[in-house]
Amino acid sequence: MTSAMYQSSIPVFIHNLNNLSNILKKAAAFAEAKKIDPAVLINSRLAPDMLPLVRQIQITSDTAKAGAARIAEIEVPSFEDNETTFDQLQERIAKTISFLQTIKPEQIDGKEELKIHYVQRNKENNYIGLPYLNCYVLPNLYFHITVAYAILRHNGVELGKKDYLGK
Amino acid sequence: MTSAMYQSSIPVFIHNLNNLSNILKKAAAFAEAKKIDPAVLINSRLAPDMLPLVRQIQITSDTAKAGAARIAEIEVPSFEDNETTFDQLQERIAKTISFLQTIKPEQIDGKEELKIHYVQRNKENNYIGLPYLNCYVLPNLYFHITVAYAILRHNGVELGKKDYLGK
Repeated sequence: MTSAMYQSSIPVFIHNLNNLSNILKKAAAFAEAKKIDPAVLINSRLAPDMLPLVRQIQITSDTAKAGAARIAEIEVPSFEDNETTFDQLQERIAKTISFLQTIKPEQIDGKEELKIHYVQRNKENNYIGLPYLNCYVLPNLYFHITVAYAILRHNGVELGKKDYLGK
Repeated sequence: MTSAMYQSSIPVFIHNLNNLSNILKKAAAFAEAKKIDPAVLINSRLAPDMLPLVRQIQITSDTAKAGAARIAEIEVPSFEDNETTFDQLQERIAKTISFLQTIKPEQIDGKEELKIHYVQRNKENNYIGLPYLNCYVLPNLYFHITVAYAILRHNGVELGKKDYLGK
């Protein structure tokens, strides 16, 4: 049995980012068809103290690139959080996918027991490779994609589970 | 390297079902404190054509038990979808966890290439073990838990990412 760390991370992240990209394409088309300012959707929230759509996309990107880089033991690429349009959000997703595609299976496989340590917002974080993927990266990734989907569904965009799951 | 299929499925499902149980406890306490009929939350939706909270919980349970049983190559336990109260939803989650706890690592590990075939609503489904877990079971599980969380947040229940991620 070879390690499944790569197969359970990088292609899964890319698959879900592509699904998110398709969901945002439908949202942009919806805004255009209904003559809604795209910024209304991009800044929409499910609760006043929940983050708007734009932040859900940025955090999905951050979760994927940081998760991948930390397991691969390379520097996390830093992207500015300055997107304000659907086109810019698509670019952000494409840039994230491009980074993920540079990571090779041998940088991820066998990292189940890897000690991961990083400091974020003055907080020390210590994880082990596989639980980091299973109990931190993946649940966060799916959380922010699902909230993005739910914000758009709540606003009337016609989406279905198939858009979320992809092919 | 031994297989990580068990570690990436059964304990992950149980961990997330426990988080969902804690989220529902906070929802029940919120309803009581605000003198809101719990049925209002249980039947709440984010869009008229999205499923209500009760169905999100039932489908989370279904996803976990069917995913586990199909990889373990045992019969999927059938639960009636008849819950109408928070206590009954807690029972449903507890029953699901009890079933998952009967599954042993040796029933799951090494099933990365397992051919999975089943018929659901007259549709033939064919999967391979690891992609079935990574691209069907886990995204569905996280989807329905996140939508449950989002329904409750949208209704004012005080929850945070920590409740979703658990310990």
